[in-house]
Amino acid sequence: MSFSRLQRRIDELRNPTVVGLDPDLAHIPDFILNKHIREHGEGLEAAALAVYEWGTGLIDALCDVVPAVKPQSAFYEALGPHGVLTLKKTCDYARSKGMYVIVDAKRGDIGSTAAAYASAYLGSITVGNSSFSPFTADALTVNAYLGSDGVLPFLSAAKQNDRAIFALVKTSNPSAGELQDKIVTCETGDGSLSHSKVYTLVGDLLAEISKDSLDDMGFSRIGAVVGATYPEESAFLRARLPNTFFLVPGYGAQGASAADVAVAFNGDGKGAIVNSSRGIIAAWKKSGGSFAEAARDAAIAMRDELRGVI
Amino acid sequence: MSFSRLQRRIDELRNPTVVGLDPDLAHIPDFILNKHIREHGEGLEAAALAVYEWGTGLIDALCDVVPAVKPQSAFYEALGPHGVLTLKKTCDYARSKGMYVIVDAKRGDIGSTAAAYASAYLGSITVGNSSFSPFTADALTVNAYLGSDGVLPFLSAAKQNDRAIFALVKTSNPSAGELQDKIVTCETGDGSLSHSKVYTLVGDLLAEISKDSLDDMGFSRIGAVVGATYPEESAFLRARLPNTFFLVPGYGAQGASAADVAVAFNGDGKGAIVNSSRGIIAAWKKSGGSFAEAARDAAIAMRDELRGVI
Repeated sequence: MSFSRLQRRIDELRNPTVVGLDPDLAHIPDFILNKHIREHGEGLEAAALAVYEWGTGLIDALCDVVPAVKPQSAFYEALGPHGVLTLKKTCDYARSKGMYVIVDAKRGDIGSTAAAYASAYLGSITVGNSSFSPFTADALTVNAYLGSDGVLPFLSAAKQNDRAIFALVKTSNPSAGELQDKIVTCETGDGSLSHSKVYTLVGDLLAEISKDSLDDMGFSRIGAVVGATYPEESAFLRARLPNTFFLVPGYGAQGASAADVAVAFNGDGKGAIVNSSRGIIAAWKKSGGSFAEAARDAAIAMRDELRGVI
Repeated sequence: MSFSRLQRRIDELRNPTVVGLDPDLAHIPDFILNKHIREHGEGLEAAALAVYEWGTGLIDALCDVVPAVKPQSAFYEALGPHGVLTLKKTCDYARSKGMYVIVDAKRGDIGSTAAAYASAYLGSITVGNSSFSPFTADALTVNAYLGSDGVLPFLSAAKQNDRAIFALVKTSNPSAGELQDKIVTCETGDGSLSHSKVYTLVGDLLAEISKDSLDDMGFSRIGAVVGATYPEESAFLRARLPNTFFLVPGYGAQGASAADVAVAFNGDGKGAIVNSSRGIIAAWKKSGGSFAEAARDAAIAMRDELRGVI
């Protein structure tokens, strides 16, 4: 789905939050996992069924408060093929509840292989005379280390099927800067030299290749992952990339405050969505009570905190 | 599996080739797909079963000639959860036939999420009181754009379970250089400035963090993807990273010659493995006849060509 449609849902709910579904088994209440172990034995199938019950419970509790969910593919893959089936079913369930689904898979490869990933998450594949959507994401996270020909197949699928991608620009982790903050020297059009950081170069490249894909609110089909744990860099990128929708990780458990995320928004308070994972999905561990109610309470608190700064 | 064990198998077969299993449906003979469509209807399940039959047929035909296979996850994911189950079963089958399995998934994420990917492909996950291996790869390809804390969890799982990873350094695609060839300026230990390309910086970083993981042949647990389509860069990296095992894509369909790949090997003809995908798995389209026999013939021809230059 284009980012303008995401922005409209954010505006309806007055809440620019995406909840990261990270089904680390440590976040799943024991009673859910144990129920499925009793039915199916100790194994990845039981774990995957528990993750589905937990994820859909969260979606039910959150879908009228939060506009989007971001299932983290790694934790589903860690449950093997059963887990990947749960990822697909969870995406479908969230979409059926009106949520925008960002599959966080950070895929990236060379042209023909990138096209296969794009078919998997943002498109369809033909078998015989029929077409099938393997997984259905509104948006997919993408890694652009391979350059534009590793990103263009995703952009092409996004345009064709009204989807979008978020490419990694400046990530939220402590060692993000080891590569992303390095200063590169480039020749400009007139032969002089310019200096910028790797993440700026990547952001500029993505903006350039997606500049013909602007929607009715002026957002291109390629968004950027910009970590809130680096607010100075985030503010810099916000000013530099006016047509780029930002996916902002790092709030809460990773240490960024509401003020840190505020700089990721445009002057009109649009153009970004802030992720929280553990702070919402594992809230029941601190507060006690139902995991779903605890998540809803935490999401409302986050929404109200964001409303205060944007 | 450590790279020294891969090197020993390469030495036994005198063949430093890995066959890339890219199950684009266009590479699967119609009679196989149609058989499964008749049994299961047009759909992703039939396609996934066809891919399994095709992949195991290739493995049977190749396992005494070629030491390793590289299933490309993208094409399996493009068949949805059924496809991912086929990826798992194909890996298990190849290992049962004595082949070294490199899952080409180019995963990369921040710490805790990278750890989940590492559990998925190089480790295990605990459910209740039991441990399970979701997918079993001897090695996994990894994207290091997020810096060392996105790579260390993979290294840790590799050390613990006698596996390995290949991180992207210089990829084989046409636009690889847009980011990877940029010149970065870094401060050295004595305060002076040094200049190197992004791919060199990444290669150095990976060598540094894996230098305490050398096996009995002197290879670290972090190998590097170094495209044969850039032979000058490959030769440079070979000299600079003596303990790094190279996975070399780009031979054949992508345009690199046997002479182009030769520079990726150490002076003693070790330390690299050359990938070919379409040139082998789709050989039947040019030569006619059985897809498995055509693949075997093409693999023998490639082996003999490599023997001539290494």
